[in-house]
Amino acid sequence: MTAKIMYGKPIAERIKQQAKETIQSLKNDSLVQPSIATVLVGDDAGSRLYMRLRDKACAEVGITPSHHILPKDTSTQELIDLIQVLNIDDSIHGILLQLPLPAQINSEQVISAIDPCKDVEGFTATNLGSLINGQERIIPCTPLAILKIIESEDISLQGKHVAIINHSMVVGKPLSMIFLNRNATVSVCHEFTHNFEKITQQADILITAAGKQHLITKKHIKKNAIVFDVAIIPTNKGVTGDVDIEDIIDSAQAITPVPGGVGPVTVACAIDNMVRIMHHQIGEPC
Amino acid sequence: MTAKIMYGKPIAERIKQQAKETIQSLKNDSLVQPSIATVLVGDDAGSRLYMRLRDKACAEVGITPSHHILPKDTSTQELIDLIQVLNIDDSIHGILLQLPLPAQINSEQVISAIDPCKDVEGFTATNLGSLINGQERIIPCTPLAILKIIESEDISLQGKHVAIINHSMVVGKPLSMIFLNRNATVSVCHEFTHNFEKITQQADILITAAGKQHLITKKHIKKNAIVFDVAIIPTNKGVTGDVDIEDIIDSAQAITPVPGGVGPVTVACAIDNMVRIMHHQIGEPC
Repeated sequence: MTAKIMYGKPIAERIKQQAKETIQSLKNDSLVQPSIATVLVGDDAGSRLYMRLRDKACAEVGITPSHHILPKDTSTQELIDLIQVLNIDDSIHGILLQLPLPAQINSEQVISAIDPCKDVEGFTATNLGSLINGQERIIPCTPLAILKIIESEDISLQGKHVAIINHSMVVGKPLSMIFLNRNATVSVCHEFTHNFEKITQQADILITAAGKQHLITKKHIKKNAIVFDVAIIPTNKGVTGDVDIEDIIDSAQAITPVPGGVGPVTVACAIDNMVRIMHHQIGEPC
Repeated sequence: MTAKIMYGKPIAERIKQQAKETIQSLKNDSLVQPSIATVLVGDDAGSRLYMRLRDKACAEVGITPSHHILPKDTSTQELIDLIQVLNIDDSIHGILLQLPLPAQINSEQVISAIDPCKDVEGFTATNLGSLINGQERIIPCTPLAILKIIESEDISLQGKHVAIINHSMVVGKPLSMIFLNRNATVSVCHEFTHNFEKITQQADILITAAGKQHLITKKHIKKNAIVFDVAIIPTNKGVTGDVDIEDIIDSAQAITPVPGGVGPVTVACAIDNMVRIMHHQIGEPC
């Protein structure tokens, strides 16, 4: 049997369509114009590209984006001062801080200055902690994207063994909490793990975000595993992921491609989070 | 080789002695009398016993305890009102909410009302989230106790495979974040896990908090594993843990006994957290 390819675009389109309808009805009911402020320090080309993609997605669903682009030698305090202005500005509903920040800035301090009720990416401690206590207020976009694909594909989680290759604050750690909240068994591997295949060979669901081309081959996965490839690795032939898709295509049950798998859903999930935040901003408890 | 028994009492005594010295010097420097408020709803005998044990530990190190005992039909709002009074009372440095709360109370709402800077048990979302972002402001007492024993026994974590049998907010979920922050590989099992021995047999370190007598025997562990037994199960012959200690004594490298292992260190860790909170209350950033 050949693995099903789980394309992200139709899921992303559905999320954006739902967001568009919800935002339209919020606008009609509350006469509020949803607005998101992106804060960017420095002039990284990649970050600017990402901003343009997000602006496009915002325009599609009816959210007004604004940009605050600061010089690359901005201090931690200057950035916190801007965040605090945006926190109390009632015309701004969501704040999106473009990471990573330049080395001289204390990222933790800046992130913790964001009002959790305006935290589109779910990286404030209060929102991350809600993944541990099970409230799941705002889920970071990449973990949320994987969850949306799982729901869309009707994959059950209770009792399943999920292996995650990544232990960052952005992907692996929040994702592990989300799976535990749904009663999956969870193993988290990373660059310090010895013989990670001993774990991944047991996994019903494998999520890899290592950034190493051909890291995952047939010998690393269980027969009929469902595989999510979160890595985005630039090569001469375009971007690729961690998984040697040709090698596992006859062993896996399903796999997300790179590009066109988790990526587009992640962008849509920023919009989905924006809709959740809008609900808070018009009176629901945050 | 017979497993080393890792007794908790000497570690607990050392933590309390250090706390006593730090509190004395804080008192001398700032003239502040450290004070902790315990909030108890209802008249559960176990909770009252635990309060007495903690009062004794507080007295030993120079912290003044106060008690707020509310009737068992207290509402969520009444409890939140009390928490808010304690939050703004400068003479109260730490708040300890006795869990579990009666069924009519929304525990999440009440916990989230506690000022994170006065949160002795580390259960507010902001403090839990600090385990995901790596800041580790206040670590819940049981996970902290395990970490203190690991440090005391000089057990290295980087690259080790840690299996945890428990996925609660109190033990398994925060513990998994703490181990990932130290670059261990982490697997979390629980009642929905199939064939959990396939995972525990791979683990260099096993932490069990299932509350099932004789759950862990020789066949469940790797040769020379280090085993932490967090369960407290009442039996006719006194309390016991999850581990069949006689069965594994010749296979494991080290094991915490029940009683006398993780338990006493957990009580001392509430005091340790109180010292961290005191540092915040006299001017260090919270």
